[in-house]
Amino acid sequence: MKNILLTIAYDGTGFSGWQRQPNARTVQGELERVLSVLCRQNITINGTSRTDAGVHALGQRASFTGDFGIPADRIAMAANHLLAGRDGIHRGAGEIEILEAVEVPLSFHARFDCLGKTYVYRLRFGVKPDLFLRDRCYQIPGTLDVEAMRQAAAYIKGTHDFRSFMTWGGKEMESYVRTVSELQLIREGDELRMEITGDGFLYNMVRIIMGTLVEVGMGRRRPEELPAALQAKDRSRAGHTAPPQGLYLARIYYERES
Amino acid sequence: MKNILLTIAYDGTGFSGWQRQPNARTVQGELERVLSVLCRQNITINGTSRTDAGVHALGQRASFTGDFGIPADRIAMAANHLLAGRDGIHRGAGEIEILEAVEVPLSFHARFDCLGKTYVYRLRFGVKPDLFLRDRCYQIPGTLDVEAMRQAAAYIKGTHDFRSFMTWGGKEMESYVRTVSELQLIREGDELRMEITGDGFLYNMVRIIMGTLVEVGMGRRRPEELPAALQAKDRSRAGHTAPPQGLYLARIYYERES
Repeated sequence: MKNILLTIAYDGTGFSGWQRQPNARTVQGELERVLSVLCRQNITINGTSRTDAGVHALGQRASFTGDFGIPADRIAMAANHLLAGRDGIHRGAGEIEILEAVEVPLSFHARFDCLGKTYVYRLRFGVKPDLFLRDRCYQIPGTLDVEAMRQAAAYIKGTHDFRSFMTWGGKEMESYVRTVSELQLIREGDELRMEITGDGFLYNMVRIIMGTLVEVGMGRRRPEELPAALQAKDRSRAGHTAPPQGLYLARIYYERES
Repeated sequence: MKNILLTIAYDGTGFSGWQRQPNARTVQGELERVLSVLCRQNITINGTSRTDAGVHALGQRASFTGDFGIPADRIAMAANHLLAGRDGIHRGAGEIEILEAVEVPLSFHARFDCLGKTYVYRLRFGVKPDLFLRDRCYQIPGTLDVEAMRQAAAYIKGTHDFRSFMTWGGKEMESYVRTVSELQLIREGDELRMEITGDGFLYNMVRIIMGTLVEVGMGRRRPEELPAALQAKDRSRAGHTAPPQGLYLARIYYERES
């Protein structure tokens, strides 16, 4: 019996999200189809994050177990070949790419052992929307007050009950307290990139934080309103949910790695 | 009766090319559908270039005539609103965008009056293919000898019978002689951009020129072989057809404009 940990990048545009669904094309579904061919048995993978439709990944993680012959270090190349299909020859890459596959102890689980994650959110603002970037970032034609956004972001950092920054998923959770350990807004040309790291994120939390910061940047909210919005534990007190195409699951942290 | 000239940008990834087809999604088909709604009559447009599936445009041109109320300067915004659909609100842009719509004399025809065109072809080389760029450029993991490619490109410039650089379209043409007035290879980071201007291009001519230059860059052909390849008037003497996703129809030239 082997336990394999995958690191995966994907363009979420053409998928109905990560999670397997009976009649929709999903990242998990595509990966399981290809890995089942390679391993000659039905493979079920456990992803760390259930990214939504249109959300991308630079470093999603997923693990799977089985009794198969293919060595771990051959899985990535073989799977990428199948994932790219005929198009990959000319396009250079498929929509999904396994960046790494390593064997890990049987006790390891990609989701339960996750200690934290980094997401990147790409905004483009102050210029005409570029149709070639419509699936890659959130485009805002108007200008944004980045300094005010940074002030607001400082209130988000730290340990809080983030219920105001969550889309209700239909069932009570044990805790809504999460720790945002890093939150940076990095300006590069016409782009503003948010890099946010935490021990975990509630449903839509990163996108709602981004939407709220955008409203601050537009002057519709003041940075000083953020503490009260957090304390209210009420979704209506935070801003809109920024669209999925700007969001990238960038990195997953485990104890055994740097 | 009005005659309207459109300047159009589009991402060709999701389309079966420009030309209207009964059971496929095409750029012409989408534009005609939307313009027919706006003009309240069946609109047929004449595009300057019939771009293939996957080929993009930064400045395609098309004209159409009709007796309709909407003024020329309102067409672009109204059509873009319909073209973007619900997604456009969040994505900032649709797959097709009308950049400009102007009224022109009834005698003007977008295709017949075209004096020349500029195409851009985007190559990315010497680095690992980026899955987020797979629909935007031709990605070659290996290195290329750009200086050799420039030497070969110099032979392409000028007036030649380009039969060796054409995919046979099924019927004889009056002439296979075309003039390439400009051909530049511009290096920017990991990218090499070909900008090529001519009075007209045969079917697949730009992509076959690019494929041939790539083979020179890889050391599979020598620059000095180009004159004989042109003189042979034989498709088998030129290189492969570079894939569509790197090609952008950049600009169309008319007498009345700068």
